[in-house]
Amino acid sequence: MKRIYLDHAATTPVDPRVEEAMRPFWADVFGNASGLYEEGRRAKEALGQARVTIAKLIGAKPDEIIFTSGGTESDNLAVFGSARAAMGTPPSSSKPGFETSKKPGFFPLGGVEEAARFHIITTKFEHHAVLHPCEELEKRGFNVTYLEVGGDGIVDPENIKRSLRPETVLVSVMYANNEIGTIQPIAEIGKLIKKYRISNFSLPTSHFPYFHTDACQAAGYLDLNVNKLGVDLMTVNGSKIYGPKGVGFLYVRRGTKISPQILGGGQEMGLRAGTETVTLAVGFAKAFEIAQSERESESNRLTPLRDYFIEQLMKKIPKIVLNGHPIKRLPNNINISIPGTGGEEMVIRLDARGIACSTGSACSSEFSEPSHVILALGQSREIANSSLRITMGRNTTKEALDYVLDNLSDIIKQHD
Amino acid sequence: MKRIYLDHAATTPVDPRVEEAMRPFWADVFGNASGLYEEGRRAKEALGQARVTIAKLIGAKPDEIIFTSGGTESDNLAVFGSARAAMGTPPSSSKPGFETSKKPGFFPLGGVEEAARFHIITTKFEHHAVLHPCEELEKRGFNVTYLEVGGDGIVDPENIKRSLRPETVLVSVMYANNEIGTIQPIAEIGKLIKKYRISNFSLPTSHFPYFHTDACQAAGYLDLNVNKLGVDLMTVNGSKIYGPKGVGFLYVRRGTKISPQILGGGQEMGLRAGTETVTLAVGFAKAFEIAQSERESESNRLTPLRDYFIEQLMKKIPKIVLNGHPIKRLPNNINISIPGTGGEEMVIRLDARGIACSTGSACSSEFSEPSHVILALGQSREIANSSLRITMGRNTTKEALDYVLDNLSDIIKQHD
Repeated sequence: MKRIYLDHAATTPVDPRVEEAMRPFWADVFGNASGLYEEGRRAKEALGQARVTIAKLIGAKPDEIIFTSGGTESDNLAVFGSARAAMGTPPSSSKPGFETSKKPGFFPLGGVEEAARFHIITTKFEHHAVLHPCEELEKRGFNVTYLEVGGDGIVDPENIKRSLRPETVLVSVMYANNEIGTIQPIAEIGKLIKKYRISNFSLPTSHFPYFHTDACQAAGYLDLNVNKLGVDLMTVNGSKIYGPKGVGFLYVRRGTKISPQILGGGQEMGLRAGTETVTLAVGFAKAFEIAQSERESESNRLTPLRDYFIEQLMKKIPKIVLNGHPIKRLPNNINISIPGTGGEEMVIRLDARGIACSTGSACSSEFSEPSHVILALGQSREIANSSLRITMGRNTTKEALDYVLDNLSDIIKQHD
Repeated sequence: MKRIYLDHAATTPVDPRVEEAMRPFWADVFGNASGLYEEGRRAKEALGQARVTIAKLIGAKPDEIIFTSGGTESDNLAVFGSARAAMGTPPSSSKPGFETSKKPGFFPLGGVEEAARFHIITTKFEHHAVLHPCEELEKRGFNVTYLEVGGDGIVDPENIKRSLRPETVLVSVMYANNEIGTIQPIAEIGKLIKKYRISNFSLPTSHFPYFHTDACQAAGYLDLNVNKLGVDLMTVNGSKIYGPKGVGFLYVRRGTKISPQILGGGQEMGLRAGTETVTLAVGFAKAFEIAQSERESESNRLTPLRDYFIEQLMKKIPKIVLNGHPIKRLPNNINISIPGTGGEEMVIRLDARGIACSTGSACSSEFSEPSHVILALGQSREIANSSLRITMGRNTTKEALDYVLDNLSDIIKQHD
């Protein structure tokens, strides 16, 4: 049976052009990028080129791109890295430019009491790669505000404004939500944070808060220029944009002081140790380049398909609830709840008919808990438990969607 | 010019059989291993198979294999993970079997004072991926003993025995040193640690210390059976055994309680979050299988080549110092110091003649500091500064070594 894959928010296949770009780096240009000899230099050059490519695409400088093993690690580095730098524990292996400023009396090394001086703002519907680190910091004494999200899945910048305090070290808001695809007003939040910092110019904390966004889902469809967005830290990974899994980057604006969490050989400007994964970095840069160059045409192609699907489905099955704003969402994202059904059951039934989609975040689908994202919208557990995420991709056609529409309504009718 | 690559301890090219094994997983079996549908199940199955393959090779159970992004991350997870679990901060995303036991009053959540209750033993010549985390913990109040190493580059188990205390939570000793290739008596150390734990059976800390070994360099040449070695934690990565870079595992013996350091979706038994990198795991398992099946024949082939090279070189240039035990070292490792020269200069001159080798650890070669490994042997800074590491691999021939011998003595003569 021909399969229809509609879980592109979970992961995407690797683009053949990306596979091709990686090919020379397995056994030919395979050297350790830290080696002083030709094989090392060639690897280092390729890594540098990947960094330049990515930097250009987001309006950054190459040394602001820190390669990591993926989105989760980048998010962790942003959250833990900011918190730890604020705590003033100087990283063992970071280089001069990135070292924590140790203003005595202000950033003391210490435990719970010192942590309690600091504050983090995030939202209730962030990815677990941001939420769990925040919860961990909370246990260690940090203050964390988990902002409510509007019923439409959009964070209100006014809420962030009201929550800012002089001791706020980090604001982390995702660019587009991974389950419902709603697009957050990042540029607007960026502006108000900048204003807040300026108004605090006389405080020793005037460089805070840093602004982080997880842009993994957005990278295929939206403009990621860090200056337009006004972000200091930004997460992007390969696995959602037809690049390889196992690679991502954290953009770290110059002057943003974060501490590494993986220590060793001091690679990646001292912020992420470990032999550089040149092959994956090259593939990732290629995938990102393609994704950004095709993002407008893909958006133009997918938006009407998305709206067509939602409209048809609503017509066929009026009880369906669309989760998240109908328009301010990624062009490839459809997230619905079907009251009276279980999301997992639907996924399994659709799978039997050749259709792959999910209940929400693949990353937590092992746990079978109701979606924390749908709950954050103020929905009931029933709605959260019956959510279904359909995320289109480059190969998705209208015919495939019609097949899904027919089968989905058929299954729901059988179920009722 | 044909190149002679002799820095296999830094990294190896990917074996064509490994590249082949990974091929179906880029664009065909590409699903997210956490997905509930066919594409996800196929990926999960492949990942599970990779875990089984690796587990069998080291005498472990599949759920004891935690995939990571490489050797550095695995080492960090072993050191920080043990320390944090001991500190009693329960990990946010770990599953029941792996959760920290919270004996009130014994593992309190806390800062510097609590950390001071704990003790770690390691050696002065470990990889920076172990040393830097230990130094970081020291800054936070942990007690760390950095053991002296014998002049022959072998750790004396008696030294470890003498350093053990009831509050020792971790002993970390590498299996084979990455610069000088000396092989450590891991099984012997494993036995004495087990004895020590038994003798402490009445203490609440009787499950400590955990025993960790970094086996990245050993994986291509030595027996890695975790039961024979008596280790609780073991690091292996792909990039040193003709597998892909960007993947490794940490073996975690059942009952060994460590805390994750990358939090999110709860993958890898709750010990390492992030979308599973199935392609790399499959390639890594294949590379490890090949490396272990060929390790005896490769050892038999390389040992005489190593001894031939050292003997010839000593004959040609008597002032050369061999670093590390002449026989208790990896069959592919030659590490010499050439008094009166600079290691980096030699690397560059050899490179110009088509030969790739290094001064020591590629991971710190950016820093141009004298090798901490050679210094740990009790050698002078001059000897440490003039070290040259030549590490052979599967393609290394006697002809190539003769070419290196001629050129090396030629360069040294020119230099003198």
